[in-house]
Amino acid sequence: MFEEESNGRKLCIICSKGTLDMAYPGMVLANAALMEGIDASIFFTFWGLDMVTEKRMDNLQCTPLGNPSMKMPNGMGIPNLMSALPGMTGFATSMMKKEMEALDFPPPREFLQMIADAGGKLYACKMTADMMKLTEDDLFEEVEGIVGAMEFLEIAEGAQVIFV
Amino acid sequence: MFEEESNGRKLCIICSKGTLDMAYPGMVLANAALMEGIDASIFFTFWGLDMVTEKRMDNLQCTPLGNPSMKMPNGMGIPNLMSALPGMTGFATSMMKKEMEALDFPPPREFLQMIADAGGKLYACKMTADMMKLTEDDLFEEVEGIVGAMEFLEIAEGAQVIFV
Amino acid sequence: MFEEESNGRKLCIICSKGTLDMAYPGMVLANAALMEGIDASIFFTFWGLDMVTEKRMDNLQCTPLGNPSMKMPNGMGIPNLMSALPGMTGFATSMMKKEMEALDFPPPREFLQMIADAGGKLYACKMTADMMKLTEDDLFEEVEGIVGAMEFLEIAEGAQVIFV
Repeated sequence: MFEEESNGRKLCIICSKGTLDMAYPGMVLANAALMEGIDASIFFTFWGLDMVTEKRMDNLQCTPLGNPSMKMPNGMGIPNLMSALPGMTGFATSMMKKEMEALDFPPPREFLQMIADAGGKLYACKMTADMMKLTEDDLFEEVEGIVGAMEFLEIAEGAQVIFV
Repeated sequence: MFEEESNGRKLCIICSKGTLDMAYPGMVLANAALMEGIDASIFFTFWGLDMVTEKRMDNLQCTPLGNPSMKMPNGMGIPNLMSALPGMTGFATSMMKKEMEALDFPPPREFLQMIADAGGKLYACKMTADMMKLTEDDLFEEVEGIVGAMEFLEIAEGAQVIFV
Repeated sequence: MFEEESNGRKLCIICSKGTLDMAYPGMVLANAALMEGIDASIFFTFWGLDMVTEKRMDNLQCTPLGNPSMKMPNGMGIPNLMSALPGMTGFATSMMKKEMEALDFPPPREFLQMIADAGGKLYACKMTADMMKLTEDDLFEEVEGIVGAMEFLEIAEGAQVIFV
């Protein structure tokens, strides 16, 4: 695949959330960075490891619970008791998927594949993998490896770091 | 208005949350940066776009749901079932407003106006505006424009980047 | 205690969350930084102040509410209505504690003591302390002081900044 030649600038993104909505900011920024010729790495840690876990990455969800900004399509707020109802997480998730699709943003697996194809590097956090008892076999094949926090900090030397 | 002369240092803040509590850290940091002569820009993305959406910016809410740190005024925790009750979001929001007012921190609209008056730049995320079907007419008038992630990364070159 | 000689690189971490799960990323990064000879400071703000508040730091909690990534030990998701049941926050918290212990990560108080012993600097946010009516007497003794956002920005000059 085509890789933009690096201009020496580096971006390191830490993805720590496993919700569908909070999966996008890191991917959008990494993708934009690569298009600008900026080196981009993503480090998946804590709940963010779901984004590259084979069994979970195609089923990220989002929920209006605790997020009063998530509204009904008509702009009405969703009361918390209603947010907690069975089916509401599924509804919010499917709404988010449709919105992303309408904007031509691919789902996480395809988006991460695009990022890897463009030269972005994906790393899984060792502590989290140990906590969730996952090995490289359980992870998306484009993940370069499982690295510890010290190794990540070495990768991030000289980079702008963004923690999502 | 008076603008502090820049010392060459830059701070770029990404506001991605639409809750009242998480609206403040980015505004406080941008305001402090400007007072120190540091260039400050804020990029409003995802739920953070609510902070500069005319119909929503005066009604940001906060909720104790999913945030066990939010306590009753007497320091007691709030059980999740109680957090979900109608009225609890309103109660937590009004408590937060009073606390901010007591500390002389203005509400979001006034705070963002102060930041813009001091030379801070406000940008809305194009992807999010498209997703929410908003145009510049729907946004706070101090927003400089709706920019994509690539353009934001150009603005952020050489800056310390903080993702809230 | 032994302090690694600094290599001139600096890391400033802003901890803004008071949940047990989100307490760890900042501590793990600060600890790893110090082991690499990188200067590390942590600034505790908003809900993150709980991490260094004597009455709360030993009782940080985590909740599956609003976090669909938090699963039962068998990998099953937790429905939101069930997440809201009394006892569920306690269950999730005790599960997280066991997982951290199994990985040899100490609880917050010990972890912060290790970081301070290794030369890491801990600061509490003045605005938050005022909001919560806390003085230095209410805080973990290793906290260097209560500082405002402007002072924090001076400390963070030249640092990689990570907002958790």
